[in-house]
Amino acid sequence: MGYTARRYKKGNEESYTLGTTLTIELLKQKPEICKQVYLHSDLSGLGLETIITLCNKNSIPYEVNNKVFNVLSQKENCFAIGIFEIFQSELVKNTDHVVLVNPSNNGNLGTIMRSMCGFGVKDLGIITPSVDIFDPKTVRSSMGAIFDLRVKYYSSFDEYLEDVGARPFYPFMLQAKSSLTDFPFEHPSTLVYGNEASGLPRDFLEKGYPLIINHSEEIDSLNLPIAVSISLYEFTKKRFN
Amino acid sequence: MGYTARRYKKGNEESYTLGTTLTIELLKQKPEICKQVYLHSDLSGLGLETIITLCNKNSIPYEVNNKVFNVLSQKENCFAIGIFEIFQSELVKNTDHVVLVNPSNNGNLGTIMRSMCGFGVKDLGIITPSVDIFDPKTVRSSMGAIFDLRVKYYSSFDEYLEDVGARPFYPFMLQAKSSLTDFPFEHPSTLVYGNEASGLPRDFLEKGYPLIINHSEEIDSLNLPIAVSISLYEFTKKRFN
Repeated sequence: MGYTARRYKKGNEESYTLGTTLTIELLKQKPEICKQVYLHSDLSGLGLETIITLCNKNSIPYEVNNKVFNVLSQKENCFAIGIFEIFQSELVKNTDHVVLVNPSNNGNLGTIMRSMCGFGVKDLGIITPSVDIFDPKTVRSSMGAIFDLRVKYYSSFDEYLEDVGARPFYPFMLQAKSSLTDFPFEHPSTLVYGNEASGLPRDFLEKGYPLIINHSEEIDSLNLPIAVSISLYEFTKKRFN
Repeated sequence: MGYTARRYKKGNEESYTLGTTLTIELLKQKPEICKQVYLHSDLSGLGLETIITLCNKNSIPYEVNNKVFNVLSQKENCFAIGIFEIFQSELVKNTDHVVLVNPSNNGNLGTIMRSMCGFGVKDLGIITPSVDIFDPKTVRSSMGAIFDLRVKYYSSFDEYLEDVGARPFYPFMLQAKSSLTDFPFEHPSTLVYGNEASGLPRDFLEKGYPLIINHSEEIDSLNLPIAVSISLYEFTKKRFN
């Protein structure tokens, strides 16, 4: 107890999972950060059993409390909420990374996290200013992938490189000359993407190995999670085939 | 005049574009279906000039009318609305197609349309029941790609095949044995995808050439627009490289 439910704001030390499946992902993957679980009185069946089993196993308090749902959730089909402590992790140096420069959309960021998990790239650097990775909307659209990644904020790409050490990196840019397709990637290395609206700053053309995903001229660009996912697929395809 | 602004509902004969860029896409790509343009009094500059030029060129009436924005738009940054007639198109038989079986999310459908344009696959069959392709949310998330595609509803996949004639097709399924990567696709042919939550019915395993996008076991599946876009990339990569 002792936790007062309040809507998430950037800067809070806690955020939350909205939904049964998402709360189960939290309890399975990072029980050590989960402080409290709230259950709606309409929750029943396997979801309820699984949550109670995982709470008991990890000594996490849970209670039925419909009022909390009115405060934290705007969706009608949300029957479980897990309160968790916000975390940052050091990136692992000898693995592949993704770096997002100034991402601005919560849903996109969550979708990118899910694709990263899908292709086994678990380290994510985020260059600020950026959307908040622990916003409940990001957590939800990641479908739990956020609990399986290491994520760290940096104030600049140079600060990121200082932290992880020199390594090959590939900025994705519409002005690049080299195509993604069948590109001979080195590993470990880093895929780098810019903001949804403005892309990467032009000076990235002089840095690393800029790449383009060739597409027709009928659209300006692919949407960001699509571009990240297509390149992750190509980057890792030897591992999964 | 003569048009009364009302919120879109499935079954209406007209829908609308919310936003300046989207309205310009409508006017550029399908002026013949645009009945009326509404401008907000705060719109100025190049966007305003472009819209007025295109309306005049195509004899489309426009008016400044802020009240219409209160009725049709919930976003604050919407300054142009184009009313258009809903259309269906026959699919072209000697081209590649995408078929979506029972898609259920407007935003996903729009994102898929944008990727289809990006990879030059312009024919989309939709098996009902499905989300409404002309919902303003779908139109918006397509970023105008919807005006550049041919889209037709069918009540079953068999009805689709009867309409377009026998052709190779590739159902995407988690239970498939063959991998997408470097698969020797025939053309023209059809990529087939199931519903976001339930995937394709199991009997598709016995039909066509089922394919899987291999990924780690840490996620259940890739999100639908991601799966469609990765496979469109692989399906068309020889054309763009």
